[in-house]
Amino acid sequence: MAPSPIRIGLLGCGNVGAALVTLVAAQGDAIERRTGLRLQVARVAVRNLGKDRPVDLPQSCFTHDAADVVADPDVDLVVEAIGGIEPARTFVLDALKGGKPVVTANKELVANTAAELFGAADAAGVDLLFEAAVAGGIPLVRPLRESLAGEHIHRATGIVNGTTNYILTRMTEAGAAYGEALAEAQGLGYAERDPTADVEGYDSGAKAAIIATIAFGAHVVAGDVYHEGISDVTPADVAVAARLGYVIKLLAVAEQGPDQRVAVRVHPAMVPLSHPLATVRDSFNAVFVEGEAVGELMFYGRGAGGPPTASAVLGDVIDAAGNLRKGTAATLGLLPRATIRPMDEVRSRYYLHLEVLDRPGVLHTVSGVFAEHDVSIGSMEQELVADDGPGGEARIIFITHEAPESAIQATLRDLRELDVVDRITSMLRVVGAGT
Amino acid sequence: MAPSPIRIGLLGCGNVGAALVTLVAAQGDAIERRTGLRLQVARVAVRNLGKDRPVDLPQSCFTHDAADVVADPDVDLVVEAIGGIEPARTFVLDALKGGKPVVTANKELVANTAAELFGAADAAGVDLLFEAAVAGGIPLVRPLRESLAGEHIHRATGIVNGTTNYILTRMTEAGAAYGEALAEAQGLGYAERDPTADVEGYDSGAKAAIIATIAFGAHVVAGDVYHEGISDVTPADVAVAARLGYVIKLLAVAEQGPDQRVAVRVHPAMVPLSHPLATVRDSFNAVFVEGEAVGELMFYGRGAGGPPTASAVLGDVIDAAGNLRKGTAATLGLLPRATIRPMDEVRSRYYLHLEVLDRPGVLHTVSGVFAEHDVSIGSMEQELVADDGPGGEARIIFITHEAPESAIQATLRDLRELDVVDRITSMLRVVGAGT
Repeated sequence: MAPSPIRIGLLGCGNVGAALVTLVAAQGDAIERRTGLRLQVARVAVRNLGKDRPVDLPQSCFTHDAADVVADPDVDLVVEAIGGIEPARTFVLDALKGGKPVVTANKELVANTAAELFGAADAAGVDLLFEAAVAGGIPLVRPLRESLAGEHIHRATGIVNGTTNYILTRMTEAGAAYGEALAEAQGLGYAERDPTADVEGYDSGAKAAIIATIAFGAHVVAGDVYHEGISDVTPADVAVAARLGYVIKLLAVAEQGPDQRVAVRVHPAMVPLSHPLATVRDSFNAVFVEGEAVGELMFYGRGAGGPPTASAVLGDVIDAAGNLRKGTAATLGLLPRATIRPMDEVRSRYYLHLEVLDRPGVLHTVSGVFAEHDVSIGSMEQELVADDGPGGEARIIFITHEAPESAIQATLRDLRELDVVDRITSMLRVVGAGT
Repeated sequence: MAPSPIRIGLLGCGNVGAALVTLVAAQGDAIERRTGLRLQVARVAVRNLGKDRPVDLPQSCFTHDAADVVADPDVDLVVEAIGGIEPARTFVLDALKGGKPVVTANKELVANTAAELFGAADAAGVDLLFEAAVAGGIPLVRPLRESLAGEHIHRATGIVNGTTNYILTRMTEAGAAYGEALAEAQGLGYAERDPTADVEGYDSGAKAAIIATIAFGAHVVAGDVYHEGISDVTPADVAVAARLGYVIKLLAVAEQGPDQRVAVRVHPAMVPLSHPLATVRDSFNAVFVEGEAVGELMFYGRGAGGPPTASAVLGDVIDAAGNLRKGTAATLGLLPRATIRPMDEVRSRYYLHLEVLDRPGVLHTVSGVFAEHDVSIGSMEQELVADDGPGGEARIIFITHEAPESAIQATLRDLRELDVVDRITSMLRVVGAGT
C-alpha cells in the first residue's frame, strides 16, 4: 500500500519555490524509496495568479490566499518562500500554532524574529527548520546544530554573500574598479538594481546573526551586527593586498570570547592567500569554523540561486516530514539572549594606508600617534608618490599587530589632525593571519 | 530536578576514546543547558587495565571485559572506539540487539559490514551512527544523509587520508622525494611505522566505500573499491604537474552514472590548481560533492586526530541520546547492494609521461597507438633529455581527453611493445578539469 503523502503548502513560487516544485517532482520516487515518505506539493500561494510558471502543477493548486493555505486541513507542512518579515512572520506563526512544521528560506525573518519563532515551534512541538536561510545550498545550520552539538565553537568566519564575492573577485582578477564590477554583476543578474542590501553588508549581517545564534546557542539579531560594505574598496587596495600576499573579501565574523560575550560584524577584510577562505571565488560562499576540539572546518558551495536553495529546503522538508510521521520534533531550546561585545572592544589587526608629506620627521610623528594609543606596528612600508624632493608626497602602509577597535579609531582620529597627513586612504581589518 | 543521565559505555580508550572522555567532561554542562541531556561516561573497556590514562574517571569505571560493558543494564548507549572488524562487530551487534544505540568511529567495520549493521539497527529501532568513521571531525555523513536527502548526487571526490596528503604536500612544497616525505610524516606521528594502509590507499578506500553508500543509497563495501597508492609518485611527476598548473593528490572518487551503476576508486591524480581540492594542504581532509540541484559543495577540516574525531563522536552521541529519550531513531533504510561499474569502464583524462628515442617518426608512431585505441590527445609536449643529436633520448608528455580506462590500458600495453619507447615513466589520471 502506498503511504499517504505528506502534503506541502508552499508560500511563494519565485526562484526558490519553483525550483522546489521541480525538485520534489524529480526526486519524489528516490525520496520515497529511501525514506518511505511520499511528498506532494498540495497548494501554492502566489501573488500573481495569472503569471506563467515553469512548474508542472494543476492550476487548482494555486491561490492568492496564503492564510488559506496555512489553515488548510489538507496541508501537513508549510514551506515559506515569500521573504521579508511581514506577512511571512504571521503565516509562519499561524502554521506553527496550528501544529504544522515550517521550513523557511527567509534570512530576514529568522535573523529578526528567531526567539519568537523558536518559542512558537517548541510550544507546538513541531519543527521549524531554516537551513536555506544561510548560505543557500551549503549544509551549515544542521552541521552546526547537530554534528557540532558537543563542540565549543570559538569563531565562524564566512563569505556569505555571492554578489559581493563576485564583485571582489572581478576587482582582484580582472583589475576592475568597484563600479565596473558592480555593473557586470548586475548584468549577470547576480546583483539587484538597488544593490544596497548586498554591497553594504545587510544581507551578510542577517546571515551572520543566524550563524552566531546557532553556533553560540544564544539569540543574536540582525540589529546586533556591526556593518561596513565594500563600496569604498579601491583598485589600489586590491593591488596592495595582492602585493602583500592577501586578498580582500567581505567577511561575516561571529566570535565568542571567554567572557561568553558575542561579537558579530561584517566588513571587508584582508585575508592571507594561504587561508582557505582566500580561495573562495566568484559567487561561491563558504563558512570557516574554528572549534576547541574539532579545529578548523570549512563548508563551501553555492550560497544562492533557485536550485541550490531549493535543495536545502527539500532536505529540511524531508527531515520535518519524517519527524511529523514519528510524532517528534527537533527542539531548538529556549536560548538566552546573547550579550553583545561592542565593536569598540573587538580586537583585530589593521591595514592602514596614509598619504603624507615627504618631509623629515614625518614617520616619527606618525608612528608616535600609534604608540600613544598602544597600537603596535607589525610591518610598514613607505614609497614616494612623486619624487619632487622634500615637500612631495609619500604613501605609508602599516599593518598593525592585534589591537582593539577603539584604539585604532582613536589613532585614526589623531592622525587626521596631523598637518603632515594629507589623508587616510584606507583602513581594512586583517583577518586570519594570527595576532 | 536534574535529569537522569544517559550512561555511555565506551569500548576502547586510545586517542579517540580518551579525547571523548575529556570532551564530555568539558562540554557536559553546555550540552545539558542546550539539549536537556546529561551525559555520563559510565564504563570503559580497555585492553590494558594497568596503563596510565590522561582521563579523569574513577578506576572502578574501567574493565577488561567489553562484552560486560555492552550487556551492563547501567549502560544506555555504546561508543565503539576499538577499531578493526572483530571483535568490534560482535560488540556492536550485541549492543544493537540489546536495544542500545551505538556510535562508532570505525571505518573498517562500517566499510565491510554496513548492511549487517544497518539491518540490526533498523530491526532494533535504535541508532547506529558513524560520522567519525569518515573524514574524522568533518561533518559529512550527516549532511549527506540529511541535508542532501533530496539531492541527486552525481559524484563525491575526497582527500580523505591526512598522511598521504601530508606526504604529497611536502613533495609539492619542499620538493621532497617520496621516501623523505614519508620519513618526515613518520617522525611527526602522522604515518605508522608500516604505512601500507595509508600510502597504498586502503584507508581511503574504506572511507570511499562509506561515502558511496551514503551518497548513492546503495551498499558499497571496501572490496568494491579500485586502489592505487602514492608510493610510485616521483618528484618529476610533481614538478611537471606544477609546471602544467596541477597538483598531485590522492583522491577517493565515488560516482554514479545514469545507469545507476556506482564506480569507486582511489588513486593519485592531477588536480587543476584552480580546483577547491587543490588548496587542501598538509594533513587536512576535504570532500567535494557534485549534485544535480545543489551544484558544487566542499566539506573541509581535520580528518583524523583524537579531539576532532571525538568531536564527531560526541555529536552523534548527543543525537542518539536525544532519540533514545524520545523513543525514536534515525532509520538508515534497507539499502540495496550497489551495482559496481568496473574500473575498465571508468572514464577519465590521463597524463602520460614517456621516454622515447629521439628519432624521426617517433611521435608519429606513438600517436598512432593512441589513435588506434580511440584515445584523443588534448595536449602534448616533447623535450630532449640530453641533446646528443638523433639517437638521444626525449621525453613526451601527453594529456588525453576523456577516455575509458580500458582504452588507456590497451594504449599503454601497445606503447610498451614499441622499440622506440624506452619506458613509460608515469601514468596519472587528471580529475576535475572538464573532459
